[in-house]
Amino acid sequence: MNFISTADVTGKELASILSAATLGKKQGWKPKLKGKTVGLLFFNPSLRTRTSFQAGLIKLGSVPIALSATDSWALELIDGSIMDGSTAEHVKDAARVLSTYLDAICIRSFPGMKDWDDDKKDALIQGFAKHATVPVINMESCLWHPCQALADALTMQEVLGKTKGKTFVLSWANHPRQLPMAVPNSALLIAAQMGMNVRLACPKGYELDSDILNQVKQTAVKQGGSFSTHNDQAEAFKGAQIIYAKSWTPPVLVGKPDEDTKLRKKLSWTITKEKMAMTNNAAFMHCLPVRRNVVVTDEVLDSKQSVIIQQAENRMHSQNALLLKLLGGKSKSK
Amino acid sequence: MNFISTADVTGKELASILSAATLGKKQGWKPKLKGKTVGLLFFNPSLRTRTSFQAGLIKLGSVPIALSATDSWALELIDGSIMDGSTAEHVKDAARVLSTYLDAICIRSFPGMKDWDDDKKDALIQGFAKHATVPVINMESCLWHPCQALADALTMQEVLGKTKGKTFVLSWANHPRQLPMAVPNSALLIAAQMGMNVRLACPKGYELDSDILNQVKQTAVKQGGSFSTHNDQAEAFKGAQIIYAKSWTPPVLVGKPDEDTKLRKKLSWTITKEKMAMTNNAAFMHCLPVRRNVVVTDEVLDSKQSVIIQQAENRMHSQNALLLKLLGGKSKSK
Amino acid sequence: MNFISTADVTGKELASILSAATLGKKQGWKPKLKGKTVGLLFFNPSLRTRTSFQAGLIKLGSVPIALSATDSWALELIDGSIMDGSTAEHVKDAARVLSTYLDAICIRSFPGMKDWDDDKKDALIQGFAKHATVPVINMESCLWHPCQALADALTMQEVLGKTKGKTFVLSWANHPRQLPMAVPNSALLIAAQMGMNVRLACPKGYELDSDILNQVKQTAVKQGGSFSTHNDQAEAFKGAQIIYAKSWTPPVLVGKPDEDTKLRKKLSWTITKEKMAMTNNAAFMHCLPVRRNVVVTDEVLDSKQSVIIQQAENRMHSQNALLLKLLGGKSKSK
Repeated sequence: MNFISTADVTGKELASILSAATLGKKQGWKPKLKGKTVGLLFFNPSLRTRTSFQAGLIKLGSVPIALSATDSWALELIDGSIMDGSTAEHVKDAARVLSTYLDAICIRSFPGMKDWDDDKKDALIQGFAKHATVPVINMESCLWHPCQALADALTMQEVLGKTKGKTFVLSWANHPRQLPMAVPNSALLIAAQMGMNVRLACPKGYELDSDILNQVKQTAVKQGGSFSTHNDQAEAFKGAQIIYAKSWTPPVLVGKPDEDTKLRKKLSWTITKEKMAMTNNAAFMHCLPVRRNVVVTDEVLDSKQSVIIQQAENRMHSQNALLLKLLGGKSKSK
Repeated sequence: MNFISTADVTGKELASILSAATLGKKQGWKPKLKGKTVGLLFFNPSLRTRTSFQAGLIKLGSVPIALSATDSWALELIDGSIMDGSTAEHVKDAARVLSTYLDAICIRSFPGMKDWDDDKKDALIQGFAKHATVPVINMESCLWHPCQALADALTMQEVLGKTKGKTFVLSWANHPRQLPMAVPNSALLIAAQMGMNVRLACPKGYELDSDILNQVKQTAVKQGGSFSTHNDQAEAFKGAQIIYAKSWTPPVLVGKPDEDTKLRKKLSWTITKEKMAMTNNAAFMHCLPVRRNVVVTDEVLDSKQSVIIQQAENRMHSQNALLLKLLGGKSKSK
Repeated sequence: MNFISTADVTGKELASILSAATLGKKQGWKPKLKGKTVGLLFFNPSLRTRTSFQAGLIKLGSVPIALSATDSWALELIDGSIMDGSTAEHVKDAARVLSTYLDAICIRSFPGMKDWDDDKKDALIQGFAKHATVPVINMESCLWHPCQALADALTMQEVLGKTKGKTFVLSWANHPRQLPMAVPNSALLIAAQMGMNVRLACPKGYELDSDILNQVKQTAVKQGGSFSTHNDQAEAFKGAQIIYAKSWTPPVLVGKPDEDTKLRKKLSWTITKEKMAMTNNAAFMHCLPVRRNVVVTDEVLDSKQSVIIQQAENRMHSQNALLLKLLGGKSKSK
């Protein structure tokens, strides 16, 4: 079983992961993955993900193997290609070889941000998922960041108790750089999976990919919640119990950094104390790293409503619960 | 005891390593190296070597310490030099210091590819071998890749049963880049050590270093085999039981990339289904990473004759057997 | 408790750390830190520090988590700043998040060498010390290298027995590059803490920061020793029992590399056999890496008086004793 998106787990499985995470967080983790070898492949930088996976695996009795892209070669993703260019190894071979050494392969690979149609294929992680013979876990790909979403779910459960019927707002926010959509996509989807009334708040033109939004809407409705898009931030914030802030570059602006930058400069979507006051005493969430006083003010980040550190801490606990689910069986110790 | 080349082990020792590898692969590895600290120093990128050594050591109960060259300083290799240039530490000091922390030092250091006389000295690994007070293991140097050769030997034993008297062909193949000779040197030598009839197939002018070839020839004859060079690929493939493909830049073309590139473009040495049909149902081998449809076609790589994944998997098992041989005694746990 | 400078430990605590280091070096280390997760954050390259911390932690039963700066983002160090520039995460958030995964945070962060007033703030490690909720250990900051100093102290105790009243000389030495002051600062301070007669030997204009020198002087006097500065190397070496060589760029030349380089070229402060002959059979010390035949001649480095390898080996043992002191209690295994 792979974990590429939170859609890969049923509602029952999700509940079971969150319950195991809560227990492990409370009672401490037992070395149930002793002798397991888990590879962490980073094609992009990481602080939280890298440290939380490593620390979590160690607490589970395993010894993590972290690999940076610079340790290795450029991978070819297209089947049948004549490899006389810059790629040195086919993902087919890399995935099959690593499967002989490792019990699971965790991968971080950001989008190229040049062409959304290309990014949307999520070719690297899909290539590993297709060819690996051990579980593949997504540590943030072009499309999804499902481990962040598990931590978000655990945090919302801790903060709200029952999440069904509560109001979740994902709000676009200012930021000086072009940013991918994996976190917002996964945040919307997990909120929908938890039966929340999901609101996407973003400036006109900054809507996320329509296929993703359709998936979110269908999931929300199926779970007894709802989905709506708001170009008016104030309207979206009214009555909200969760404000999840994040900046992103929408599909229509991928590959057009100058246009995106020009548009961003005119927008005032920073989350402030005044905006938070419009909500129903909402908790403030962000995946970190966060640009202070650009995405959100210090006042909000350092307020009692901010749960950003709790959210980050929950990365480790929810990932550990996931790892136990995927690898908890017998080790292939040979 | 160091392991710089497979010539460092006797026929009996080689048989014993392969036998331990087979047993470990079948029954699983026991934590016999618990408390041992093995350093993996990478002066060049690595995927298979890095992951197989790390995973293997973990299965043996150890915790590997992987270090990239970028983590450290440039090393001085010449005795008595006045170090007022770019090198910050003498290999003499680095090797002695690391020996106080580690139970073994494994090193990957590729050739400079500017001057063969210089590369042939293999100064970095020889410097470590001279000054370290713990075993030094070669994870691919300018001259040799003996850990790859152990995996090759294990794979040939699995595929052929008895290797003595079987026909082994190392064939040069097309590739867009200049490549070192460590893998082909070690592949020829291990085949000779296993008593095989060893054939080197390469375009005229692409012959490997003559000292190495003499060592291969003498070893083959001593073990009851033979050695021959063929500039006609078809002639070499006739009756072969192993086809081992690899591209390299020969000694005479080291430092002359333009000339090498120009010559390569005229050559048609890609391994194809048609060429494989000339053999005695040979197994196809390659050390990976492999440029698909340049070195060898997809058809061959994905055929039943291809043992490339088995070969890669055997890296870990043969290395574990080697590590147990070199470090299996008492730990210096202090 | 943090360990930013050796001034953070009392004389009694220092003696206890050295005593534990001696015992561990003699008898071997026990896995007392099993289940602890220690993060090693390297914002700069490292060979000895990285390997000694990793090997040491493994011998203590822990699994170290080493992170290179390239794995992560640039950190913002100023409170209240509007983060629309190059920094992606505030040290406040990074320190608090890492504290939820790790039992201790070890940090290496060299000075910028542009502006001494700025370097002197030691903002990165001070930021971590302020915001982390677990112990912070300095693996060399702008101002201090206290783990090196612990190893120096252990080595001097091994070499001299009683250190009180013995003569310690820190001598500036030639070197082609601009270098920071952390090692010389910590070497002087630890010698003072051990009650030695501390002499700083350096060319006129190469004196260390006056606040640091005042702290050294006060500490030396308090411990029954003394402190003096000598611009005449020969005068300083007379009767010395320890010669500790190190090059550095003094506060007045930070940010002025051309002026520093010009001045250095006129100086002949290389440590030679002839200079060592002026001492009271002094042991020769250096923190490594050392530029042979620039800082000091091969003759001295390879003589019986040289204790550089012993000094490097002691890094691991003194650090292990420190880690046990800071983390020896109950694990937060959750």
